[in-house]
Amino acid sequence: MPDRASLVALADAKKPLFVGIDVGGTNIKLGLVDDAGRTVGYHSVPTKAERGAEDAVARMKEGVDTLLQQAGATLADVARIGLATPGPMDLKAGILLESGNLPKWWHFPIRQRVSEACGLPVRYANDANAAAYGEFWSGAAADCHSMVLITLGTGVGGGIIVGDTLIEGAHGCGGECGHVLIDPSDDAPRDSLDKTGSLEAFCGAYAIIRRTNEALDAGRSSSLAQLREGGQKLSPLVISRAAETGDELAQEIAMETARYLALGIVTFIHTIDPDSVVIGGGVNFGGAGHPLGEEFIQRIRDEVRPRLLTSLRDTLHIDFAQLGGDAGYVGAAGLARLDHRQQK
Amino acid sequence: MPDRASLVALADAKKPLFVGIDVGGTNIKLGLVDDAGRTVGYHSVPTKAERGAEDAVARMKEGVDTLLQQAGATLADVARIGLATPGPMDLKAGILLESGNLPKWWHFPIRQRVSEACGLPVRYANDANAAAYGEFWSGAAADCHSMVLITLGTGVGGGIIVGDTLIEGAHGCGGECGHVLIDPSDDAPRDSLDKTGSLEAFCGAYAIIRRTNEALDAGRSSSLAQLREGGQKLSPLVISRAAETGDELAQEIAMETARYLALGIVTFIHTIDPDSVVIGGGVNFGGAGHPLGEEFIQRIRDEVRPRLLTSLRDTLHIDFAQLGGDAGYVGAAGLARLDHRQQK
Repeated sequence: MPDRASLVALADAKKPLFVGIDVGGTNIKLGLVDDAGRTVGYHSVPTKAERGAEDAVARMKEGVDTLLQQAGATLADVARIGLATPGPMDLKAGILLESGNLPKWWHFPIRQRVSEACGLPVRYANDANAAAYGEFWSGAAADCHSMVLITLGTGVGGGIIVGDTLIEGAHGCGGECGHVLIDPSDDAPRDSLDKTGSLEAFCGAYAIIRRTNEALDAGRSSSLAQLREGGQKLSPLVISRAAETGDELAQEIAMETARYLALGIVTFIHTIDPDSVVIGGGVNFGGAGHPLGEEFIQRIRDEVRPRLLTSLRDTLHIDFAQLGGDAGYVGAAGLARLDHRQQK
Repeated sequence: MPDRASLVALADAKKPLFVGIDVGGTNIKLGLVDDAGRTVGYHSVPTKAERGAEDAVARMKEGVDTLLQQAGATLADVARIGLATPGPMDLKAGILLESGNLPKWWHFPIRQRVSEACGLPVRYANDANAAAYGEFWSGAAADCHSMVLITLGTGVGGGIIVGDTLIEGAHGCGGECGHVLIDPSDDAPRDSLDKTGSLEAFCGAYAIIRRTNEALDAGRSSSLAQLREGGQKLSPLVISRAAETGDELAQEIAMETARYLALGIVTFIHTIDPDSVVIGGGVNFGGAGHPLGEEFIQRIRDEVRPRLLTSLRDTLHIDFAQLGGDAGYVGAAGLARLDHRQQK
């Protein structure tokens, strides 16, 4: 089942259809998406990255067949495939580069091979950028002209869209939102790439866990201290749950994260001046509708506003993403649709 | 005379022509620019901001007449006018907002009034964004698909172009490069808008002077100490001259500025991933061709490179701007040309 999308019947779908494929470290999500951005069918297959890319392409082909069959559609209904994978990648050549998540897939011509296997043209994209385009096309920013998405997960990623144009960058590194710098000091924290002072070094899962452990090591009392002593490994989810049940330290950590995130958001707003800033990813402290999630996003807004140019303060829109785990395949399908329309 | 542009004869000009108008606090520069981005004619008139906007519009009209007359052209040769002013502004409405440099011009419908006075459609733009488009169209980034310009002057400004699209922003505040944040601490320096931790708070003229004064106050020996005692007011130009003649403190200040600037540039690269980063404005420590200027820009490159995502390190292009004070009117004309071509 899709994460958040509700399925529309094939009879109600706006044609043509597009297939979106989102390759993750564990699963490959496949969605049949209509011309209005609605999900018509959903299927997923295991990535089994260790078996190599050619093996996965065969499973993607089988997955597409199953997806179409379940929805009652045929390949003739599909105009194009959108394919999203983790970076880095050579977008022009359609080749995966040295991805940390897919070690046996390096330098694989994935766009061409998926296209050959499935018999359709393929639009290839970075997964975070595809997710951004998904939220822009039919999620949290569906009524916007421009958007910055920041995803909080193990790392901090994102994507930027200005007027229907996805900022993919001259070398496929546009919208690497976790790698903007927010601290100039040499002893600033380091991120997953061993870089100091990046947004990810303050707001990535590892940073959240590190700050919590440091506070506990310094003798701070918290329900997390007992959990840790009992052998529980701290994660943003565990910390988030503690915060939701009133743990003071965990709530402080959440609000600190909101403050650091705000610094990055101010930078994006003064660079792009988008209609909307969207916060996605799993590390959302309960997310939309949850009291702590709402406090988290309100804290972000409260920290951003006074740092903005005066003329931007009353136009601020910062909200949670809406598509959850569906954003990647929906956005990949949406980018395939853009290509299809441009080449018609 | 134009600052850097060499004039081409009307007979050699590629038609149609465009008029670019760049309104500064002291002078209004007017350029007649051909379809290839070359300057055919140049004229300037005093801004006399204190007389108000309507008075300046009358001088702009006279200026355009003089400009055309001197070049041997007529209004019929001109397809459109590009008009650049300092911000903030409402681009959609074509209205100047509360500009610090033009206090008597607030809320003036400048686009419509210039269009009525001159009898041509007008494309209105922020002056820093226009300068960026000028460098992109026919200056330092003329062979690029995307570019970030950072201008170092009294303030720190800039502009961003991605694939022929100027990132003007949903509220006219795109490319406000001086207002990205590079320091999260509450006691970080403040910029001209009293905001802490912005790039401008570290690299603006005021920041450069403040750091120099602090070092001198702390007893640092420097040729600048004697100048200051002699009543000379320190400016980036005075500090730059001292550095050029071997003053150690002044050179340190220049290289510190390069380091801070590099942090902002890393952020722009990981956000936009442009083909090229261009450094413009008067505070350039001698600029291109000068030993200190070359050392300054090389220091920027050296500080940026190790902080980049690995796949971007060998693709780095950071260079000085080429159009000097002509960039604004050239870019305004170029934006007028874009509008003209889109509406043909």
